[in-house]
Amino acid sequence: MSLVPLFAPRGVAVVGASRDPAKLGAALARSLRPFPGYVGLVNAREPRPADGVYATVRDAAAQGPLDLAMICLPAPACAPALAEAAAAGARAAIVYGGGFAEAGPDGATHQRELSAVATDTGVRLLGPNTSGFLAPGHGLTASFVPGAAAVPAGRIAVVAASGGVNHALAFLLAEAGHGVSLAVGLGNGADVAAADVLDHLAGTPDTATVALHVESVPDGRRLVESVARLAATRPVVALVVGRHEIGAFAASHTGALATSWRTARAALAQAGAVLVDDERELVDAVSALALTRLQPAAAPGVGVVTAQAGPGLLLLDDLRGRGARVPELTAATRDELATVLPPLTYQRNPVDTGRPGPGFARVLTTVAADPGVDLVAGYALAEPDAFDLVAAVAAAGDAPLVFGVGGAGPDVQRIRRELVARGVPAAVDPTGVAAMVGALITDARARRDPETPAPAGHIVEVGSGPFDEDRAKALLERLGVATMPRRACADRAAAHRALADLPGPVAVKLLDAAVLHKTDIGGVRLGVATPDQLDAALDALEAAGARRFLVEAMAPDGVDLVVGARRDPDFGPLVLCGLGGTIAEALADVALRLAPLSRAQAAAMPNELAGRALLDGWRGGPALDRDALATVLVALGDLLHAHPTLTDIEINPLRLTAQGLIALDAVVVADTALAQELETPDGHTDC
Amino acid sequence: MSLVPLFAPRGVAVVGASRDPAKLGAALARSLRPFPGYVGLVNAREPRPADGVYATVRDAAAQGPLDLAMICLPAPACAPALAEAAAAGARAAIVYGGGFAEAGPDGATHQRELSAVATDTGVRLLGPNTSGFLAPGHGLTASFVPGAAAVPAGRIAVVAASGGVNHALAFLLAEAGHGVSLAVGLGNGADVAAADVLDHLAGTPDTATVALHVESVPDGRRLVESVARLAATRPVVALVVGRHEIGAFAASHTGALATSWRTARAALAQAGAVLVDDERELVDAVSALALTRLQPAAAPGVGVVTAQAGPGLLLLDDLRGRGARVPELTAATRDELATVLPPLTYQRNPVDTGRPGPGFARVLTTVAADPGVDLVAGYALAEPDAFDLVAAVAAAGDAPLVFGVGGAGPDVQRIRRELVARGVPAAVDPTGVAAMVGALITDARARRDPETPAPAGHIVEVGSGPFDEDRAKALLERLGVATMPRRACADRAAAHRALADLPGPVAVKLLDAAVLHKTDIGGVRLGVATPDQLDAALDALEAAGARRFLVEAMAPDGVDLVVGARRDPDFGPLVLCGLGGTIAEALADVALRLAPLSRAQAAAMPNELAGRALLDGWRGGPALDRDALATVLVALGDLLHAHPTLTDIEINPLRLTAQGLIALDAVVVADTALAQELETPDGHTDC
Repeated sequence: MSLVPLFAPRGVAVVGASRDPAKLGAALARSLRPFPGYVGLVNAREPRPADGVYATVRDAAAQGPLDLAMICLPAPACAPALAEAAAAGARAAIVYGGGFAEAGPDGATHQRELSAVATDTGVRLLGPNTSGFLAPGHGLTASFVPGAAAVPAGRIAVVAASGGVNHALAFLLAEAGHGVSLAVGLGNGADVAAADVLDHLAGTPDTATVALHVESVPDGRRLVESVARLAATRPVVALVVGRHEIGAFAASHTGALATSWRTARAALAQAGAVLVDDERELVDAVSALALTRLQPAAAPGVGVVTAQAGPGLLLLDDLRGRGARVPELTAATRDELATVLPPLTYQRNPVDTGRPGPGFARVLTTVAADPGVDLVAGYALAEPDAFDLVAAVAAAGDAPLVFGVGGAGPDVQRIRRELVARGVPAAVDPTGVAAMVGALITDARARRDPETPAPAGHIVEVGSGPFDEDRAKALLERLGVATMPRRACADRAAAHRALADLPGPVAVKLLDAAVLHKTDIGGVRLGVATPDQLDAALDALEAAGARRFLVEAMAPDGVDLVVGARRDPDFGPLVLCGLGGTIAEALADVALRLAPLSRAQAAAMPNELAGRALLDGWRGGPALDRDALATVLVALGDLLHAHPTLTDIEINPLRLTAQGLIALDAVVVADTALAQELETPDGHTDC
Repeated sequence: MSLVPLFAPRGVAVVGASRDPAKLGAALARSLRPFPGYVGLVNAREPRPADGVYATVRDAAAQGPLDLAMICLPAPACAPALAEAAAAGARAAIVYGGGFAEAGPDGATHQRELSAVATDTGVRLLGPNTSGFLAPGHGLTASFVPGAAAVPAGRIAVVAASGGVNHALAFLLAEAGHGVSLAVGLGNGADVAAADVLDHLAGTPDTATVALHVESVPDGRRLVESVARLAATRPVVALVVGRHEIGAFAASHTGALATSWRTARAALAQAGAVLVDDERELVDAVSALALTRLQPAAAPGVGVVTAQAGPGLLLLDDLRGRGARVPELTAATRDELATVLPPLTYQRNPVDTGRPGPGFARVLTTVAADPGVDLVAGYALAEPDAFDLVAAVAAAGDAPLVFGVGGAGPDVQRIRRELVARGVPAAVDPTGVAAMVGALITDARARRDPETPAPAGHIVEVGSGPFDEDRAKALLERLGVATMPRRACADRAAAHRALADLPGPVAVKLLDAAVLHKTDIGGVRLGVATPDQLDAALDALEAAGARRFLVEAMAPDGVDLVVGARRDPDFGPLVLCGLGGTIAEALADVALRLAPLSRAQAAAMPNELAGRALLDGWRGGPALDRDALATVLVALGDLLHAHPTLTDIEINPLRLTAQGLIALDAVVVADTALAQELETPDGHTDC
């Protein structure tokens, strides 16, 4: 059901309005004073109808249109109050207080009761355990936090997991000279989730960009789809909490289980969101994206103009760290700049103007007009006496521009606000400029290729498990993945025949689907060249418990990758790509994508790895064909997507050799119980 | 000579005072209006003695005490003007304009002329190519940047390579509610360098902490010694530019060559500075360290108190990323908290107070009193109606405290300023709180162990080069580094005798001091077990050019490290420690220290490596004895420190095995020409 009654109600009622000014209900009633719609107060114990305080919601609803019930009652009283509000005609509600899923088993029961009422009545419920929302454009402060009404109306929406973070972000945006269209804290999210709010925003015209704060993601696919829909028309910037171990405190906060930080970030980025590292960068990013958006491009060119070389160096250093491209300006641009600037200033990009003067506007215009420049990033100390920075920047034409203004005091703040009023994102320092540029570039890159994954193109015959290495590799071959010639051997004689058949020395391995980590138990022998060596190897494998053997030609040297696909509890099938070896493993240097994924998405995965230099001809070694790797990754993702009985597939290593990619080992894990269930026609197991 | 005449002059003269208000000299004269000392203006072409504008510095000096000449002239005129000022009695000068070393050969000549005058006359020179300095406590704005006079006096000093960054930082500090004792931009640093200013600050009482901005370090050892002296009594926070490729623009800025970012950071940290990543973190760090400093400790315990769980989670996540220890509170503390807080809030650490009220002060006091807590980090949205945050924080006792206050508008800014006035560092957001805590912790850790390197304890007989692997390993053995049994073999027969003598299979290597990368040319054969295999190996090595061979017992498996020492052009002898293997190399995952270094410094090096998990018993493998590694690292550093003829020593790999650390390969490079020179008694070569 629509969230309009929640976020744009005609009238509201505070259920649990109190005379004690320290109580939530009293604070809320104060916040609602400027609201132009109907406000009813409900206090069952002390009704004063003459003052607009009624004994029941029904009584309050009789006095005006009541879309939204704001419930400030102890947890056990909330579900009955919600039912009563729904019966009185409210179509939305907020439960502010805590004592629900975050507070142990009794609280979880209360939360389930709330959810049940919401489901039964169709009333949309925000919370419980939230400080509410701000909709300054509607004159509505549905929050008990003092000062919240001071946040002005604007075009940035905040969708925060936490009410506290919602307010903290709204205040930071206000301090940066921006306003909000809507700022919501979801709290425990018993009914309304982030995806609901994003879908609501997609249908409203007054939001230019969204700041999304994520703690846990109970339904990852739904959130990703909502982000992707919204990002198609306006930028979404996401901050995901939980990079480090914060689980116990997080659970105490909303009662939700932790979502993998890494997976959530990868999934949101894949959906087109701009990911940031902290709330400052979040504010910088939406401050820029609320005002300007670049054309889609793989690597937009940044022209840097600075009035002081030192801050310009800080800015350039930061931009390089963000992977921004700062191209050398064309000869024509430099000729033009030479007519404006003193001869000894740096003019190749960055452009150092020296002490800025009236020519500053023409420098900006000239750099903006360079054919390689998609965005100008500027910095200057404010010198109101020397030149009019706002006029200079405003004259710079239509090229997207981000400008940092150094200085202190009201004059400087006024300059920044005037820049914002003219549509130019204004930062306080070089780091802010770089963060803004980084967000604009990431957004432009995400939109370059709509990246709609192709439908699964590699549906193959899988068969049922269990999969030993031979069967796993047969499956890989059907997916188009290269392997070395091999023989599955039921006994020693077969192993000896295999040694004779296969070229060069061989690897001899224990073959048993029940053993996932052969190497750990001495189940692999490499470089076996002679029958004597083979007998010694077979003796050792039998001692390690082997009954069957895999004999396989040795692969050429190369660089080992690890690729695979698995099911995430929140996001479903994922594809992974990392480098092999213990250091990569210790660093968890892995790129992730949701499956199914497009070839372009897959081909970009290795570029995220810290050790990616090893894949591009390190010290004369082989260079990775991104397209060949994409074929493998897309196939693994499609396989898991199409076959719900497969839970995990890993190729470790997938070796990059001069002859291409070769799978040296493979593990495929199937959910046998689920497979049996699915094979039974009525959908139930037969045991 | 003292910098007092520069930074606390009795009188100043502007040389090149102009009537054109847009000119530097005019801007400077305006900046000097509030200066309580003598101000003379010098304009050779338009003297107006009645208005205090004189034809010469000498004339100006006749009218009042003239300590500092502020020269605003074209580059070619500056050296003569400096000489004239010195002759007139000035003991310090600033050259503001550009056109010197940053501007090509002619400019470099002008800069040399300036330096020569400074050396000859003893006058101390700031610049050229700088916007000057601010000394608000002396009422002196020796800067032409408008608004600079608005930066209030305070206890933070800024020492910036760049005049622009100096002002940008001073303005950011002012916006954060702080003032400066001195804020200097060094410009080209023809005379006065960062080390001079730090030494000056060490002798003045009005600076509580220093923000140091570093672009290039022409004399690294001197800077490091100045930082170490200053950091002993007050914190130094350093921001080093140049993590990424910015060389061409940087050279255009000051004409200096780039210093290694990694080396400069390592050296400054070793000297006791707190290193930060950007100017925001710099402002956060000095904002905290100007007000409070922890007791020296390896891992101070942080008590986290938050009024809103969501921002508290952001804070905790960030603190964990900075390696802060957030210990569980004692049972006694939790019992005490339980009497103040509602039952369902999280109280183990972080402590979530729920909506704060009058009990907030007692929560802070209780957490601060916990025996495991050395520092309290708090966050709350400002709720002036609900409780008095400033009073609560002020009542929290003597425990160091950092507090973030969310909210917008003048009331909230007032709360933050009042906290600062009461000695409590106040941040705007959780990231700011975490950055402040990170700085306090890093500073406390740096002071735990004064880390005075022991005098070199491993001076050994080195001999002259060149060093083949056998001689290099013999040198390592004299340093106490373990190696495998080996034989240097002049011919094949000797190699066969060595195979028979040594236990188990052997490695056979080309032995030639001229070949630094044996493996690259096929000069290493491993696992040679039989005379036939040895002959095959020797054939291959001879084909690769070997005339002599090293036959060595094979080492046990383990984790490979790379350690070494080399000479840096700016900082002298350095010790390096990293993990072996191509990924570590591709990531440049290396820890650095200046030599000589203390055992404690050496033992801490592996803890900086991204892949350090591999060294602590990864998957049942060997665990590194930090002390044994420290022995090797200290010895390598002492060796290079004591023997100027050695330029480079590398052990690659130094293998961590169950039997301890073993050097498997070693390269020692000596500067033969220098060795000959040093051996010649008169210090000159004899050829």
